[in-house]
Amino acid sequence: MIPTVEWKEGRVWLLDQSRLPGHTELIECADVDAVASAIQELKVRGAPAIGVTAAMGVALGAQSVFETDVPAFERKILAICDQLAATRPTAVNLFWALTRMKAVVRENRACTVAEIQSRLVQEALAIQQQDIAMCKAMGQQGAVLIKDGQNVLTHCNAGALATAGYGTALGVIRAASEQGKQVHVFANETRPVLQGARLTAWELMEDGIPVTLITDSMAAVVMRQGKIDLCVVGADRIAANGDVANKIGTYGVAVLAKVHDVPFYVAAPSSTIDVSMPSGSAIPIEERPGHEVTTINGEACIAPKNVDVYNPAFDVTPAEYVTGIITEQGIVSPEQIATRLRARRTA
Amino acid sequence: MIPTVEWKEGRVWLLDQSRLPGHTELIECADVDAVASAIQELKVRGAPAIGVTAAMGVALGAQSVFETDVPAFERKILAICDQLAATRPTAVNLFWALTRMKAVVRENRACTVAEIQSRLVQEALAIQQQDIAMCKAMGQQGAVLIKDGQNVLTHCNAGALATAGYGTALGVIRAASEQGKQVHVFANETRPVLQGARLTAWELMEDGIPVTLITDSMAAVVMRQGKIDLCVVGADRIAANGDVANKIGTYGVAVLAKVHDVPFYVAAPSSTIDVSMPSGSAIPIEERPGHEVTTINGEACIAPKNVDVYNPAFDVTPAEYVTGIITEQGIVSPEQIATRLRARRTA
Repeated sequence: MIPTVEWKEGRVWLLDQSRLPGHTELIECADVDAVASAIQELKVRGAPAIGVTAAMGVALGAQSVFETDVPAFERKILAICDQLAATRPTAVNLFWALTRMKAVVRENRACTVAEIQSRLVQEALAIQQQDIAMCKAMGQQGAVLIKDGQNVLTHCNAGALATAGYGTALGVIRAASEQGKQVHVFANETRPVLQGARLTAWELMEDGIPVTLITDSMAAVVMRQGKIDLCVVGADRIAANGDVANKIGTYGVAVLAKVHDVPFYVAAPSSTIDVSMPSGSAIPIEERPGHEVTTINGEACIAPKNVDVYNPAFDVTPAEYVTGIITEQGIVSPEQIATRLRARRTA
Repeated sequence: MIPTVEWKEGRVWLLDQSRLPGHTELIECADVDAVASAIQELKVRGAPAIGVTAAMGVALGAQSVFETDVPAFERKILAICDQLAATRPTAVNLFWALTRMKAVVRENRACTVAEIQSRLVQEALAIQQQDIAMCKAMGQQGAVLIKDGQNVLTHCNAGALATAGYGTALGVIRAASEQGKQVHVFANETRPVLQGARLTAWELMEDGIPVTLITDSMAAVVMRQGKIDLCVVGADRIAANGDVANKIGTYGVAVLAKVHDVPFYVAAPSSTIDVSMPSGSAIPIEERPGHEVTTINGEACIAPKNVDVYNPAFDVTPAEYVTGIITEQGIVSPEQIATRLRARRTA
């Protein structure tokens, strides 16, 4: 499979996800502006993938900072980080990755600019490699939840395309499939940007994992029909109390899962947990332009001109609806996250 | 507003709803085949509108039956009714209207063919007029449920376009608005065929009733945010126990409404109640082709080629999720429908 994001010959290369599945097109980003635009325009999306891309964006931008003076260099790196941080507000992995990149500069102030530039590249590549490793670990942890012959519902794309590779929610499904279990996936198409129809269905078909595409409005009835054994989704940010921000529509799926006694799991690396957010209500929710709802592929118009649109890109699922959170370290309940964080603070 | 369906100079004229809101195009149906195709291809849709259109289709077809022998004429009318009955399985108004048209022939066997042909036209026009009258009566009955300044969520299009005029669910909203109440509507776009985005938003904007378009996946979060005071939808068939078959996605909205303590109303003429169905599980649910999900406007492809799709066009909302059913005779609970039907049977 084509990598979501790659560092090649001093450039950031992205698979343009806004054109999938019709077009498999790579974009070469030569500067920070190009990286920032790609994130904003959803050419790369998915919380972990955004984190990796932003880290590579900092490494890329650092190469064009022609300063020999380290404090001046650091100021410019911080400005680059600010620019990338302003692209999208909800996924915490973006800020987590930028914090790591800033730390590289801070901790290497005694080095030359050339040395720091080189270490920034190394750090971005480390974040990428660790992301893949965390996804594989999550896959191993979560695969035990899926029994042979089961049906799994997922929302949005928390797959290889949403990460540096392998995926979070789809990583769990992939790992179960690699263990020889028959797994069948119901993919919510995930309006408005259709990450389920365009990305999840495509990714699973590429891997030969059986998938049935449904509209988001069908999730309720397939659950009622007893067709779903468990739900697994990704996360853009998890608050300290276990509330989960994820793609718009996730909350509805979680409520329906609870009503129909279907376990609802969230697969996310520990970098998604934001200890600074006491609860989900503190998480900033991005609102995106209405044309995402009223047009398809930027063309086909499906609503009256000038119609008023509400388009929040994410919602918050309260911890009480989450059966468990699959991290690279194990499966925990939202309450366990809250308890562990409290214990850590008082320790 | 352009009528949904009209009888003009011995022809059936339809507003092609599959092309709204981009194109306002009238189709002239000169024979039964054209009427049947229009119903099948969703050029006309909405349970009451399908009933009126089918009745006019019978009147139209009868004109081309060149028989002077009444029994031979009747056999051909029954064949026309069978053809129209085979177009779509879920909405009961279709079968109800055809039953009325068959009764006209049966009850006028003593007349000449020319006289019966004329009475079939009169009956179709009567069904059309009664449908508008029932919608207006439902509007009056239901308008009391909406208070000044309230927000109403609706799914699909149960408007003027779904009926001979005025609408069922939107008729209730229209009546409240005509009474001078400020009503704001959240319209679920209603995937896959987007009747909410294409028809409900358009219809309300034409009437100057404020509407905000959301994706179906946002209904849960707007309810949680306290933005919805009540839900009102239409129905394609109501079983004797009060279970409601309606556009796919309705069941999910009803479950979410219950969880968020939002009243959930169904507006439907009494012709929608099918006493022959003991419960919703007996109602036939139409499955439609996958390309409705994978393409938009028959063009823009939004999913991988050959992806497996599940596309039920309707779902069943169990009576326990329905706060009340607004009919032309008053607002009743699903239990009251069941009780009244039992009383009628034992009387």
